[in-house]
Amino acid sequence: MTGDADRRYHVDGEIVPAESATVRVDDRGFRYGDAAAETVRAYGGVPFRWDRHADRLARSCEALSIEHGLSDAALRDRVDETLEANDLTDAVCEVSITRGRPAIGAGPGGGPDDRFDPRIDGDPTVVVTARPLPRGGVDAEPVSDAPATLQTVKTRRTPDRAVPADATTHARVNELLARLELRVTGADEALLSDADGHVVGGADSTLFFTDGKGLRTPALDGPVVPRVARAEVIGIAEAEGVPVEEGSYAPSAVREADEVFLANATWGIRPVRTVDGIAVDGDGEDVAGPLTTLLSRLFDRRVEAACYDDRS
Amino acid sequence: MTGDADRRYHVDGEIVPAESATVRVDDRGFRYGDAAAETVRAYGGVPFRWDRHADRLARSCEALSIEHGLSDAALRDRVDETLEANDLTDAVCEVSITRGRPAIGAGPGGGPDDRFDPRIDGDPTVVVTARPLPRGGVDAEPVSDAPATLQTVKTRRTPDRAVPADATTHARVNELLARLELRVTGADEALLSDADGHVVGGADSTLFFTDGKGLRTPALDGPVVPRVARAEVIGIAEAEGVPVEEGSYAPSAVREADEVFLANATWGIRPVRTVDGIAVDGDGEDVAGPLTTLLSRLFDRRVEAACYDDRS
Repeated sequence: MTGDADRRYHVDGEIVPAESATVRVDDRGFRYGDAAAETVRAYGGVPFRWDRHADRLARSCEALSIEHGLSDAALRDRVDETLEANDLTDAVCEVSITRGRPAIGAGPGGGPDDRFDPRIDGDPTVVVTARPLPRGGVDAEPVSDAPATLQTVKTRRTPDRAVPADATTHARVNELLARLELRVTGADEALLSDADGHVVGGADSTLFFTDGKGLRTPALDGPVVPRVARAEVIGIAEAEGVPVEEGSYAPSAVREADEVFLANATWGIRPVRTVDGIAVDGDGEDVAGPLTTLLSRLFDRRVEAACYDDRS
Repeated sequence: MTGDADRRYHVDGEIVPAESATVRVDDRGFRYGDAAAETVRAYGGVPFRWDRHADRLARSCEALSIEHGLSDAALRDRVDETLEANDLTDAVCEVSITRGRPAIGAGPGGGPDDRFDPRIDGDPTVVVTARPLPRGGVDAEPVSDAPATLQTVKTRRTPDRAVPADATTHARVNELLARLELRVTGADEALLSDADGHVVGGADSTLFFTDGKGLRTPALDGPVVPRVARAEVIGIAEAEGVPVEEGSYAPSAVREADEVFLANATWGIRPVRTVDGIAVDGDGEDVAGPLTTLLSRLFDRRVEAACYDDRS
């Protein structure tokens, strides 16, 4: 594993030192958040569920009408090259594809050089970054020091009719405003609701909880991000015969749950210790409940099988 | 005026050639749209209504909790320096202030190196770009070749509870999706509505129209951007004794209006020729109506007085 000073990123087809990994200030990914992005974790040098992440990235590009001309395999090669260039096997990678820089000249929005209009063609910029994480799988060290503290916030999740939740882009101000609200309590993750007051998930994670009768998670018919980790956890629960309900829930259902956890590509499964300052399950102990523990162990086994075993 | 190849931008306090005007790929302004932005037009070398644009920029920074430590005067200096470096007097400038790059290390969101969390301090990046526009004021050449065609779109404007409309940031995907819908008709600007179906304005412009009884524009209590050009046009109308109503309007009110125009810092006042393919005022001629013509002339006079006269 290389040190931070030696970190290298993949920019426009080339591996470059992090300090020279840059994009032009008139790249639309910088100026307008006009870029698709996907976070994927590598275990033992193998990106976990690459195909599903590639699908998600393709859907985000499609939502933005960004045509980059690279195959999923070519993108995977860039992820692999980024890991190798950093001598990393356990890491989290971020893949970004921007619409690029508009050509100088008049555009359909009218007037000379209308750089805001996304209908002006650019040459997409592809960036892959990587940073080290602990080993995952059956001998996993947790990414986080402790279970999460979760806090409901006033910021509401952007509705699908404004920006579809299945497009993950460089425009993340909605989620950032939610996280900024946590400065008061110092909580780890913000719990967002939609316009109707139903919970949709964390600012950067999928919400799961149980009331003892099965696993609950906000349904995708709300503005809910269809994360790869979300599908993975649901798949694990269903394979284990745990009933899964995707529905609409009030924040009070989360506060009163027996167990609460979050999931995303970086964290995997991360238990939640408190919701709005109230201890989950009320026992005051920092231990994950039985369902969270079971699903975590099964998640780690899948990672072991798909990545570490696959490599050896 | 320099050619495009010689264009220079202001990045982090230095004037650099456009091709080396870059930001790091882990700058939050690139990765998350985590940056405040303001577009200001210079006429005769003088940024029009700089104080109001500086106020807007400060409000956007406040909404994002970005503390950059630069005075309005210091930012103005950078705009002036950018114009000078490009030998430009008639131009549009974009000022961006990002949260910068997070320091490497653990963050409050949990886990090592949680780069998503906006609570991790960075060192703000300040970028100023400029590109040439025609002369404005009383001898103005229009920025656009023709009056605009306006088209209602399905994309709804992001509500204030998700992202406040008075924060202008690098996260502009909502507006870009609206513009992308125009590929079918080839219209110049998208007309967005809020969740209740009331019009809120163009993707990158303020909407004005008249039914013969005065000037109408969507009220700021909806998710309406409080542009400097919006306040300027309202001020001109009121000074002229034209009644101004800020209210909630259905798209049909715009379609049936006698005159429709758009306003922003780049265009100034831009007449609208058709709404959803229907000729405004039905006469089929590409001429602005009397109120639009009056307000345009008065706008140009204000520009002349504030910028060109001021300089001589």
